[in-house]
Amino acid sequence: MRCHFSPTGLQGDASNPAQALALWLDSVLRGIGQVLFQNNSYSGLLFVLGVAWHSPVLAAAAVLGCAVATVFAQWLGLQRSVLRQGLGGFNGALVGVALVYFFEPGLLTWVCVLLGAAIAAMLGLALRRVLDGWGLAVLTAPFVLATWLFFLASAGLGRLQPSGLLPAATLPSAAAVEGVVSASTWAQGLGHSWGQVFFQMDIGSGLLLVLGVAIASPSAALIAILGVVAGMATAWVLGAPEPAMRAGLWGFNSLLTALALGHVFLPAQGVKQLPATLYALWGAVVYTLLTAALQAALAPIGLPVMTFPFVLTTWGLLLAWPAAIH
Amino acid sequence: MRCHFSPTGLQGDASNPAQALALWLDSVLRGIGQVLFQNNSYSGLLFVLGVAWHSPVLAAAAVLGCAVATVFAQWLGLQRSVLRQGLGGFNGALVGVALVYFFEPGLLTWVCVLLGAAIAAMLGLALRRVLDGWGLAVLTAPFVLATWLFFLASAGLGRLQPSGLLPAATLPSAAAVEGVVSASTWAQGLGHSWGQVFFQMDIGSGLLLVLGVAIASPSAALIAILGVVAGMATAWVLGAPEPAMRAGLWGFNSLLTALALGHVFLPAQGVKQLPATLYALWGAVVYTLLTAALQAALAPIGLPVMTFPFVLTTWGLLLAWPAAIH
Amino acid sequence: MRCHFSPTGLQGDASNPAQALALWLDSVLRGIGQVLFQNNSYSGLLFVLGVAWHSPVLAAAAVLGCAVATVFAQWLGLQRSVLRQGLGGFNGALVGVALVYFFEPGLLTWVCVLLGAAIAAMLGLALRRVLDGWGLAVLTAPFVLATWLFFLASAGLGRLQPSGLLPAATLPSAAAVEGVVSASTWAQGLGHSWGQVFFQMDIGSGLLLVLGVAIASPSAALIAILGVVAGMATAWVLGAPEPAMRAGLWGFNSLLTALALGHVFLPAQGVKQLPATLYALWGAVVYTLLTAALQAALAPIGLPVMTFPFVLTTWGLLLAWPAAIH
Repeated sequence: MRCHFSPTGLQGDASNPAQALALWLDSVLRGIGQVLFQNNSYSGLLFVLGVAWHSPVLAAAAVLGCAVATVFAQWLGLQRSVLRQGLGGFNGALVGVALVYFFEPGLLTWVCVLLGAAIAAMLGLALRRVLDGWGLAVLTAPFVLATWLFFLASAGLGRLQPSGLLPAATLPSAAAVEGVVSASTWAQGLGHSWGQVFFQMDIGSGLLLVLGVAIASPSAALIAILGVVAGMATAWVLGAPEPAMRAGLWGFNSLLTALALGHVFLPAQGVKQLPATLYALWGAVVYTLLTAALQAALAPIGLPVMTFPFVLTTWGLLLAWPAAIH
Repeated sequence: MRCHFSPTGLQGDASNPAQALALWLDSVLRGIGQVLFQNNSYSGLLFVLGVAWHSPVLAAAAVLGCAVATVFAQWLGLQRSVLRQGLGGFNGALVGVALVYFFEPGLLTWVCVLLGAAIAAMLGLALRRVLDGWGLAVLTAPFVLATWLFFLASAGLGRLQPSGLLPAATLPSAAAVEGVVSASTWAQGLGHSWGQVFFQMDIGSGLLLVLGVAIASPSAALIAILGVVAGMATAWVLGAPEPAMRAGLWGFNSLLTALALGHVFLPAQGVKQLPATLYALWGAVVYTLLTAALQAALAPIGLPVMTFPFVLTTWGLLLAWPAAIH
Repeated sequence: MRCHFSPTGLQGDASNPAQALALWLDSVLRGIGQVLFQNNSYSGLLFVLGVAWHSPVLAAAAVLGCAVATVFAQWLGLQRSVLRQGLGGFNGALVGVALVYFFEPGLLTWVCVLLGAAIAAMLGLALRRVLDGWGLAVLTAPFVLATWLFFLASAGLGRLQPSGLLPAATLPSAAAVEGVVSASTWAQGLGHSWGQVFFQMDIGSGLLLVLGVAIASPSAALIAILGVVAGMATAWVLGAPEPAMRAGLWGFNSLLTALALGHVFLPAQGVKQLPATLYALWGAVVYTLLTAALQAALAPIGLPVMTFPFVLTTWGLLLAWPAAIH
């Protein structure tokens, strides 16, 4: 089948070098789309625009990271069909954004983006082999692990320079309720949760990201919004600090968990939409506790939790589910 | 076969709703019994009495947690035969006790018991799938992980209120020998080790728990006592603090490890009683080192080790064993 | 086949007790040889001499640990063919060296060597079962885990007395570049990296260790030296402290990773020497970041990373590789 436009982006086979390049760029854009589970290069393009709306440099880092990870995964032998869905690159895209966000600008930081994206691609292949036996996807675990590698390494390698946005290492202690949750907390939290997937707190970016998901799948956008609401509501009841709720930090993992369970993995196993969505919303309770727990567990080594609560919650809920359908 | 009394509790099938309810309650009591590896509802009843002897509230928490976990595991599709052995509920029972013990009394703590028991049931199913490939049981890992989740989360969610019994986060440092071990240390330690499984330091409770095991299996009670002796002796030689020995804190994991290896899992593989018991007692050496090691490893995040040394030691020893019988 | 000398040491079957003892000693020496991946008892003998050159006590601890682990692994049923390659003992050898190095001299420390070697043998069998499914070797993971067990336990068991060489528990913070790397840094670092595998900083020891590898396989010695260069170069570029580079602390994990990938595991899968070596050198980048990262991650519990960066890097790179040859 010759190269042509489809509702999800370019499809088919290249018949000349220009088309091969176009298909490769399409794979990179699908990689950006896969950050929010969309195998859709138009979504990917909107996500790039959403990031660029707030910070063109971060958008460039996302595209560069995604491209490098795609190339390295191909070199390590990842199948073409998987690469064409963007699954070789999305962790590299997030590594690029995170390193440029948390490290001082400079040449070495961009070298780290290249290295980090390659490491994420390699970790993706390694984890894929380990998780295959249980039917689990790697999700954003390669991104989180590769990024933590650089953050932690900056404590021993003097030329890696954090930008001061990383949390300082500290011993955890019991929290008090902080601030009062109002309607504006909810409104801003709902808007910011989307951008936080790419380390942004910008409602304009958020709208472009919602739009990117909605053009690929309106129901996915709805499930993601329900996920944010469930995550924020649980966090509210259990006494999460108001400023973090307003910043969207209690919504973005929940957004991803709801998409993963309610839109992607359970429907792929033939589970109906209603039970899949309900189970995904139960996941928000687990995710909220896990986010606070991981924050405390990582406090003595000064690491941000990023999307790891989403990864662990999704793995746990998927592993527990199959019993229900036997 | 119709519902009837057997030496281990109710057996058979329900022919009316009252019998169905009785069988369900029997499963819950067996769940309490499984905390000390007894698929026996009379043992479970004695364990409830043993906990209630010291604290009726903790006993209620154990029963509630066990009931909720049993229901949730059933909803997630755990097979009826497994549920009827109490294996769906025992982790929930321990979650109930631990949360009521370590959190301030109040409505939210009881809500956490419900959530925590459900999370433990879900983790039990998830871990079961992961561990099945190596022929390992989940033991009390779901309880430990679910409880740690709440303990850690209290550092970020202001409405979760620890009762002050959790260890404060601190950096570990080398220990000196503390106190002098005497005959009364040994006597009290042997008595308290039983109750510590349920977070109690009460010899009356201990006697009811021993009795509960002994009516199901006198040899199991003997193996458990040998386990406590081996654990306390190793701890003594290596210089564990005397007050903790007296409190039974160096005996309860060893008790569980000895039961697991010497009474349950190795005999189930056809291993004779003598080598199984000797291997279980070697486990006490490993467990003692591991308890001190985990205490230090968890110090910076302020977590108690609970029964995790037992879980890891039992897994390790079972994984290493099969080579010996090939 | 009767017992006889071969280019790698004794071979064949014993026809009298003296030969049986000689073969057993040959297995122990091969165990020392396996620390640097040499199934060769002459290499093992040179390694013992290399350690003894700097410290006869550490050499004795290595031989004792290796012997105890070999016996315990045999008792647990490890196959004779595996034992004869020295694979039952090498982790025990390293446990012996590490405990005598990091703990105060005394009877209890030597008891710990016996216990630690036995625990390492048991962990070796347990990990072997877990890792078999992914085709991974246990490497030195049993040594690292068994040794950490004792180091951490010394925080709770007063009779375990660290010698003051263990790092104090501390919270990590961002590093500055320390010292200026010169030609003498490189020369000493290259020489010290070998001895650091056995906790030594002695160029005489290093030369004996290189010789021990080279008599078994000159190409292995070359790959190991390339590995040290790659590791030190990456550490230099990223700003590792000069004193640690000079001490060989940024070379010994890289040495082991290069040997593991370039000399042992990838060639065993039929990979040609050039791609295997290039992939091994890419591993040095990962290993260098991982060493700094693990140092920071373990800082709050005061543990040295020892050879764990080598273990994790080798596992990760091997898991990611197979895709490349499908």
